[in-house]
Amino acid sequence: MTRGPSTGMLFTDQYQLTMAQLYWKHELHERPVQFDYFFRRYPDYGEHRAGYAVFAGLGWLLDWMDELEFTAADIEVLRGQGRFDEGFLGWLEHGGTFGELQLQAVPEGRVVHANAPSVVVTGPLAMAQILESSLLNHLNYQTLIATKASRVDEAARGNTVLEFGLRRGPAIGANAGARAALIGGADFTSNVALSTAVGLDPQGTHAHSMVQLFIAMGEGEIGAFRAYANLYPDECVLLVDTVDTLHSGVPNAIDVFKDLESAGHVPRGIRLDSGDLAYLAVRSAAMLDAAGFPDVNIVLSSDLDELAIWQILTQIEVESPRYGIDAATVANRLVYGVGTRLITSHGDSALGGVYKLVAVKDGSWSPAIKVSDTPEKTPIPGRKRLWRLHDERGLATADVVSGEDEDLQPGAAIVLHHPHREGLQRTFAADEMGAVEELLVPVFDRGVRSDGDPDIETMRLWRRADLDRLDAGVRRLVDPVEYHVSVTSAVHDVTRNLLESVRR
Amino acid sequence: MTRGPSTGMLFTDQYQLTMAQLYWKHELHERPVQFDYFFRRYPDYGEHRAGYAVFAGLGWLLDWMDELEFTAADIEVLRGQGRFDEGFLGWLEHGGTFGELQLQAVPEGRVVHANAPSVVVTGPLAMAQILESSLLNHLNYQTLIATKASRVDEAARGNTVLEFGLRRGPAIGANAGARAALIGGADFTSNVALSTAVGLDPQGTHAHSMVQLFIAMGEGEIGAFRAYANLYPDECVLLVDTVDTLHSGVPNAIDVFKDLESAGHVPRGIRLDSGDLAYLAVRSAAMLDAAGFPDVNIVLSSDLDELAIWQILTQIEVESPRYGIDAATVANRLVYGVGTRLITSHGDSALGGVYKLVAVKDGSWSPAIKVSDTPEKTPIPGRKRLWRLHDERGLATADVVSGEDEDLQPGAAIVLHHPHREGLQRTFAADEMGAVEELLVPVFDRGVRSDGDPDIETMRLWRRADLDRLDAGVRRLVDPVEYHVSVTSAVHDVTRNLLESVRR
Repeated sequence: MTRGPSTGMLFTDQYQLTMAQLYWKHELHERPVQFDYFFRRYPDYGEHRAGYAVFAGLGWLLDWMDELEFTAADIEVLRGQGRFDEGFLGWLEHGGTFGELQLQAVPEGRVVHANAPSVVVTGPLAMAQILESSLLNHLNYQTLIATKASRVDEAARGNTVLEFGLRRGPAIGANAGARAALIGGADFTSNVALSTAVGLDPQGTHAHSMVQLFIAMGEGEIGAFRAYANLYPDECVLLVDTVDTLHSGVPNAIDVFKDLESAGHVPRGIRLDSGDLAYLAVRSAAMLDAAGFPDVNIVLSSDLDELAIWQILTQIEVESPRYGIDAATVANRLVYGVGTRLITSHGDSALGGVYKLVAVKDGSWSPAIKVSDTPEKTPIPGRKRLWRLHDERGLATADVVSGEDEDLQPGAAIVLHHPHREGLQRTFAADEMGAVEELLVPVFDRGVRSDGDPDIETMRLWRRADLDRLDAGVRRLVDPVEYHVSVTSAVHDVTRNLLESVRR
Repeated sequence: MTRGPSTGMLFTDQYQLTMAQLYWKHELHERPVQFDYFFRRYPDYGEHRAGYAVFAGLGWLLDWMDELEFTAADIEVLRGQGRFDEGFLGWLEHGGTFGELQLQAVPEGRVVHANAPSVVVTGPLAMAQILESSLLNHLNYQTLIATKASRVDEAARGNTVLEFGLRRGPAIGANAGARAALIGGADFTSNVALSTAVGLDPQGTHAHSMVQLFIAMGEGEIGAFRAYANLYPDECVLLVDTVDTLHSGVPNAIDVFKDLESAGHVPRGIRLDSGDLAYLAVRSAAMLDAAGFPDVNIVLSSDLDELAIWQILTQIEVESPRYGIDAATVANRLVYGVGTRLITSHGDSALGGVYKLVAVKDGSWSPAIKVSDTPEKTPIPGRKRLWRLHDERGLATADVVSGEDEDLQPGAAIVLHHPHREGLQRTFAADEMGAVEELLVPVFDRGVRSDGDPDIETMRLWRRADLDRLDAGVRRLVDPVEYHVSVTSAVHDVTRNLLESVRR
């Protein structure tokens, strides 16, 4: 079982290699440079959009980089293209590793924001360039999915979320998608390989086809349910919508649950996979309650996402009283199986993260800038540090990019400038300020991971802690409040001067 | 370099394994069954939707199945879950292969339609069940992307399309996406690993960062262009939008092209990656023409998809006369670099293909059916064959599902029934009829691929031939005409009788 990063150095775009050869020819390949990874806007799903992102994909990127080199077979492939010089190929074969690169990053699982770099890559130009495609590939997709999962988890209000997307996921990328979903908020996944890789128990129920088969053999839906309950008496979740949910599925499940209970087992749940899930959940809950099973879960699945879950909970609140049941007792027993719309980030299926040259060393470091007609597209130039400022309530109030020599400390007022809109600034007074935290930490050094390889549970705790310190307005599903990403006066001045010098 | 299918038997959903154990316990695991793979609706991108799909993913699915077995490590993982019987694990370890399954399929690259099975799986129940997740995963994503690529290719009207999606693609699934794009209509991809695997030359230009670097070193955009042209004189495509496309990029490119020409080389192209691509293409073409470079390509990139390309071509038609240039001479030199929106199938990022039990053998074969409140969700039951009928113009007019014993021949009238809408039928007269073709062919038998492992070029030829035989109305990008998928009278009667018997 691979952990995902199973291709080598050739998992890249062709132009990275042609540019690397050009740098080698011009003896620029060892020139120290800095590239920043960041995204410019949060996922926008149409009628709703994200106000924050959950950073993911770093661990698998670092695994991919770890001790990776151009193999003899890779070199032979490049030789076969006919456009690479033997000298360059010789250099690639012996010097073409990531051993001289240093990466700083926000730890995986933490909340990150638009325009603030979540990875900073420093090192020799040619290999920093070759890293680009794979870095973007690993980080963009997993951050996209972890962000969607976090929204689904918010909508689910603490109830269990199961990732079910393998069958509609992007080929073998579904493994990365399931991992990102777990980091971002899913509790378990049905994907066996991925569960095994991250040390979680895979989850599942059974399929319609099993019920169909027992019906075809003349044993009916109840026959299928009994067979399943006998084999898995302590984790028995029955899919009740193959024939008729309320007139066949739920009554049959209740019969089987009574047998299970008599035999000393605790029935686990029913699953609804079609129809009006909210209505069916209310009616099923009432039937289960009446039969003496108030603790049996109701697993919902079928094109769920954060809005569908929100709508289901709202409808349950409206509709429960009509059937003499308390809405909270319905809602509290729900479990959400989320497939297609999570693993494809329904509504916005790509994160546009970019990797931009921001500094070049020639003796000393100089900031590099890319001018654009759209000010929002100008990366923040130069060597930098990233800080998160909290206010006196303990809530995060701004992510701030400073120069590499600046040290932001609580207790000193600071002027925060908008990174792109000239003149937009505010002073954050010393007495408003809570904790100040530096976000970028070393994660890759001298060719090996140095991030401690955190497990899924650790990353989830980091995410949860960050969400707890995020304003509810930034977290909300629809029309979230804009979180402040700012630069210090020093960075603001450097940027303005660089832009003026380029324009002259 | 992996071809993509790098995980083994555990690349599946947990419930496939728990159901397989149930079948084993009930001695049903060897029961011959048939599952069909089909999708119910074409991708719907919002304002536009597909009228056909291009079938892809089969080759990698068959590679994954080929001689695959549960390894000792896989068995150890399952044992560790604590819910599998030693007897079942023993059977899995020795009998848990796809060696007894037979697959028939529409050849990869061919046009396929909603509700008509493109794969039919026959064989022992337990392993046919375990196959489900991986089969859906391989076929849904690649068919989705091949279909999008075909639409992009249609919009591009024969001009070259380059797949550039690695950096925004779904983790390592980007390899499968690039492959599907090549089957569906992209000419080349920038993905080096994937190009190598399928025997194509990877394509690319250079990045903004290369120009930025030369500017930072004081050598300017022209310095970067010269360096690139010197190194790649016969495949020189210059990215002209880093500073100012019309006032710096194109004039500098023309200077470099003149030098290239003097040295006996043929300049290849410029690339536009931002701004109003249609306007800039017109103005750049006029400048290149005036400088004596009428054959230099203009590569466009930046969030392209089928509608963006269509809009660009329409705008060029409107705007060219204003700048004294013939629209066709602009359009004919365009090359399209399509990234994010192709590899994520922008607008509809999942194909909802399903895998349904349709027949069970107990002595003889019996059709199985799943009743649904929505008639469209009822699969076509029973053992079957799939035919494509052409009319007297040589165009495909219907895909028809027949019983396994029916043999459709040209020259005999046939009654075609809608698969779900009772009473909707038409008679296709003998003198209207052209060629009749059977679509499902054996592709996997006794544990190994038997589809001949066609290369990308072969699959592209199949796709092209199918498109040539498809009505323009079915092919159009917006509001396509519905292609007919029908069943024979025999299949219609079996379905109706089965539904009636279940309802009683």
